[in-house]
Parts: sequence; structure tokens; C-alpha cells
Amino acid sequence: MHILIIGAGGMVGRKLAGTLGRSGSLDGHRITRMTLADIATPPVPPGVVAPVEALAVDISESGGAQALAAYRADVIFHLAAIVSGEAERNFELGYRVNLDGTRGLLEAIRREGMRETYVPRFVFSSSIAVYGSPFPDPIPDDYVLAPLTSYGVQKAISELLLADYSRRGFVDGIGIRLPTIVIRPGAPNAAASGFFSGILREPLAGQRAVLPVEETVKHWLASPRSAVRFLIHAATLDTSSLGVRRTLTMPGLAATVADQIDALRRVAGPEAAELIDRRRDEVIEGIVAGWPKSFTPERATQLGFTAETSVDELIEVYLAEDAPGASRGD
Amino acid sequence: MHILIIGAGGMVGRKLAGTLGRSGSLDGHRITRMTLADIATPPVPPGVVAPVEALAVDISESGGAQALAAYRADVIFHLAAIVSGEAERNFELGYRVNLDGTRGLLEAIRREGMRETYVPRFVFSSSIAVYGSPFPDPIPDDYVLAPLTSYGVQKAISELLLADYSRRGFVDGIGIRLPTIVIRPGAPNAAASGFFSGILREPLAGQRAVLPVEETVKHWLASPRSAVRFLIHAATLDTSSLGVRRTLTMPGLAATVADQIDALRRVAGPEAAELIDRRRDEVIEGIVAGWPKSFTPERATQLGFTAETSVDELIEVYLAEDAPGASRGD
Repeated sequence: MHILIIGAGGMVGRKLAGTLGRSGSLDGHRITRMTLADIATPPVPPGVVAPVEALAVDISESGGAQALAAYRADVIFHLAAIVSGEAERNFELGYRVNLDGTRGLLEAIRREGMRETYVPRFVFSSSIAVYGSPFPDPIPDDYVLAPLTSYGVQKAISELLLADYSRRGFVDGIGIRLPTIVIRPGAPNAAASGFFSGILREPLAGQRAVLPVEETVKHWLASPRSAVRFLIHAATLDTSSLGVRRTLTMPGLAATVADQIDALRRVAGPEAAELIDRRRDEVIEGIVAGWPKSFTPERATQLGFTAETSVDELIEVYLAEDAPGASRGD
Repeated sequence: MHILIIGAGGMVGRKLAGTLGRSGSLDGHRITRMTLADIATPPVPPGVVAPVEALAVDISESGGAQALAAYRADVIFHLAAIVSGEAERNFELGYRVNLDGTRGLLEAIRREGMRETYVPRFVFSSSIAVYGSPFPDPIPDDYVLAPLTSYGVQKAISELLLADYSRRGFVDGIGIRLPTIVIRPGAPNAAASGFFSGILREPLAGQRAVLPVEETVKHWLASPRSAVRFLIHAATLDTSSLGVRRTLTMPGLAATVADQIDALRRVAGPEAAELIDRRRDEVIEGIVAGWPKSFTPERATQLGFTAETSVDELIEVYLAEDAPGASRGD
């Protein structure tokens, strides 16, 4: 089995490549080849037993998508994207990568299939950013996609394309809407959602963190480990029951900031929670107010997707896998 | 006020051009110029008092959209599309016109606005084909778009683009999802929805018509006159309350085939209803089974959109405006 990961240089992509590469198999099939692609040559994770090639490809450039489709991989994970804030700042870049890049990949696969039958499993990482307020809490599986950002629009459009290319038999597509990933490893970043990880990650390392919103803010969270498990499960499940609705909201944990701080106290003691500086930021508050708070992800749950059920678990996963010096820090 | 109608050669486009051109004004503003565009030069409707130019433009070709944006019209009606059946048969053509054409127009307007401020009202004709089963009956305004055809996918994607280009301030966009138009004037066509008009239109002319489905089939209908009124109302209403959800399901009449036949009997006598041949067609039945039956179009209703409330009215509109020899047969 040949596996292609596009966007293999990102946090989730590296972790996915490491997990698959070390296990050497997917759903009982031996991985005979792995191709890791990203805009810059992605790292090959340590301990990988499968034969692996890493390469730099721009899917938004003519020829990039075709080159990747020509590998005729059995399973393609498409994780590559310009992130939300950057797609909002740079309108053309966001559309070029997140829309044209995804469409280019689907179209290159269709054309590859016209040459000789080719219908790969295509796992697409979408986002809960396809939803925008007003919405009910929780949001059901059949609620309208009304994104508040260009990034969300690009993901929603990609979902529609994935559905149509799958319905027409050009790919065997499945999309998964990832919750906000907590705890993201690494340094603080400028993303509006960064504080959801920061208020746990920094105090766990004995460092101060800023909380820009009220403690009542609730959001939909899952660990990096869950994100990888979602992707692997999506790559292996029977897609015949999906119909045209090929993208599923992933399960997650609806936690308030207060829930997060309580868990931090339990795991790391009250002094850790003292490291959080409450400094409200109206811009961030405004952005976060438009984000989903919770879902009833019935379809995904019925198909066997599972996630953490407490913030304590999110912290445990971080300490076990993602914190500096953890055994599985990819 | 300069008005541009793209897709002015189609049934609704011709009727819109005639209505606006004869009235000479839109929302109290004098129409100083009308530009009618279509893939082939559209006809100039009779009785038009505004200065009018008709031209052939392919919006899916490089330069076509730019040329239209360069007119800097105040109001743009975008009705051009490859219809459902053709978009299903010809995958590439459907995407080229219905997706790339619409995106090309929005992008050309954005670029025209970079040269010198330009934010036209952009009225986009979408379709209830953005919905696919399973769905509740009636379908609420916040139900997920899950099209069962490439045409529906292309319309749903265009709605998302319209929303994002409007949110970013590049156009003042509004989309309207048209019901199935009944009674369509003219000859029977091969569309799966054709019988909804045919079982009224043909008997009204003393001719036989085929009914390929059961009388219990229910669908969402409005007259050609309502379609034109929707478009004109969309061109003039205050869009500030729309938020990012820029496309509205239009009101219509939820009528069963039996309702249609009853109305035909009332208007044209029992002998007219005898002209309907019941000849079930499993292919058409299958297609129609996936179509919406009714809606609760609350947002559009609150914004003042109205439609017919009985099949009798649909027939009256046809006889008054659209039947051969009617006074306003555009």
C-alpha cells in the first residue's frame, strides 16, 4: 500500500506520518511506500520502517497536483492549507492554495483515472470553521455551513467538491472537520485560537500565559492524537454508507475555559493556574464569539470516531506525546 | 442607473429584461442604460424604453468576465448557467461555466474595484437544487446544502463565493434560490422537471401531456412572473441585514401533482385533465424523489418576497403573460 501525505510538514501531518511510518501498516495492509509532500520538503519522522520519500511540491502551481496524482497512491491524506489568519490577510493566496490547490488535486486524480482506472481513498482535513454564528448549541450534523472567514469558505467549497467528485466516482473521498486542536505543541503563535493551548501548555512548563477571553467561553476541542486517529479511521472505514454527505464533524470535547483551568489545577496544582494572566482582548473576543461551541456529531460517532472526554485527558496526551522530551514527540 | 443582465437570452432573463426595459426604472431610479449579455447575442425585448445594448460574451473564457465588469454597471443580474441535465452529462462544461464563470465575474469585479472603487449590487440566481435528500419537509432556512447533482454543487459553491466576496466588501451580493418555474412557456423539453409545466401547458393548448410520476409527488413551484419579481426585489432591498448568509430560499407554492390537476380542471374543465397520460418513468421518479418538496422560507418572507399561493394563480399568470398570444409574451 502506497500512502501519500500532502501537508506532511505541519503539526498533524508530521504526527500522522510518524504514526503510520512506525506502525508500517494501515488497516492490516503493509505500507510498502510513503510519500511525504509539503510546500517545503517535510521532515522524515524518526523510527519510520516503511520506505519513505519526502518532497517539496506546490499544489497550487500548474504541474504540482498532476505530479502527486501520478504517484497513484492508494490512500491520499490532504492536509495542506493556508491557515485561517493568513487566508484572511492574503485573499488571493488563500483561494489559490485552499480552493484551487484542493480542486487541482481532485481534478488531477480524475484525469489520472481517465488514463487508467484510479479511484484512491482521499482523506481531506476540513475544519469546524465552516460554521459561523448564529447557530444552535450544540450544532447538529445537518446544519448549514455559513463560514465567517475566507478560510472557512474555502474549506466548505472543498467539501462540496469532494462530495461531487466522490459521487461521480472519481475519488473515494471522505472529509473530516477537525475540532480545535489542544494542546498544540511548540511555541505560542499569533492565531486567535492560540490561547486555548497556551493557557495549558505554558503553565505546564512553568511559564506565564495570557487569557484574552472570559472563562465562560466554550469551544470544541480534541488532542493532536485524536486528530491523527480521526485521519487513520477515515482512511480505513467503509464509505458506502456516507451518501453524498462525505464530510463529517469529528467528535470532540465541549469545554469552557473554566473547565480547562480546573483541569490544569488538578494535574499541575493550583500554582500552575496562577500563571494565567487575564487580559481581555476585544478583537479576539469578537472572533471567538463567532466560533462553534459544541456539536452533536452523530454520524461520526456512529461510524466509530471517538475523542477525549475531559480536559484532563487532553493534558495527559500532551504530557505523554507532545510535550518537550515526551517519548513520542514528532 | 446602468443594468447588466448576464444570461439575458434565457426564459427568465428575457422576461426580466422586458419588464425592466419597459418600466424604464428600478426602485425609483431611471434606467439610463441596459446591457444584455449571453453566450449568443440575446434578443432585445419589444417595448423597451431604456437605451439597450445586446452582446455575446462567454463568461467562462478569459476576458469575458473582465469585459463585463469593465462596464461598471450599478446592478448586475447573473442568471447565466449550464442547466442541470447538461451539467450532469458534461462535467467539465458545467464546472467551467457554473463555477469558473461565476467566480470569474466576482473576481473581475474585485479587480475592477482595485482600479477604482466599485461595489455593484450583484444578484445571483441560485436554485433549490442545492438541497438533496434526506431532508425534513418542509426544509428550514438553516438546513445544510447537500446537492445531488454537479449543477447543485456548482450553485452551492457560487453561493459561498458570493457570501465571501460580499463579506469582504468586493460586491454587494444577494443570491436567490428559485423554485421550479411553472408554467414555463414554450415547447416541452427533456428536463426531468419538464412535466411539472407540461401537464398544465399542453392540456391548456388542447394537447396531450405525459405524467411520469405519481399524483402524490409534491414540489416547490413559482411562476415566471414571480421569478422576475424576486430578482427585482433582490436588486433593490437593503442587504445590510443579511449578514454572511447572502442567499435566500424564495417563497413558493408546495403543490402536489394532484393539486395541479385539480386546478387544471377548475380553470379549463374536466376534459383538459383527460389529456394527461399517466406513464410512470422510474428514472424520472428516482430523480424527483431526491428533490425538495417544500420550504419554510422565513428569511425571504420577512424581507418582503412573495409568490403565488395556488396552482390556479400559476395558470392565470401563464394565460395572462406567457401563453402563445398573451399580451406580455416576451
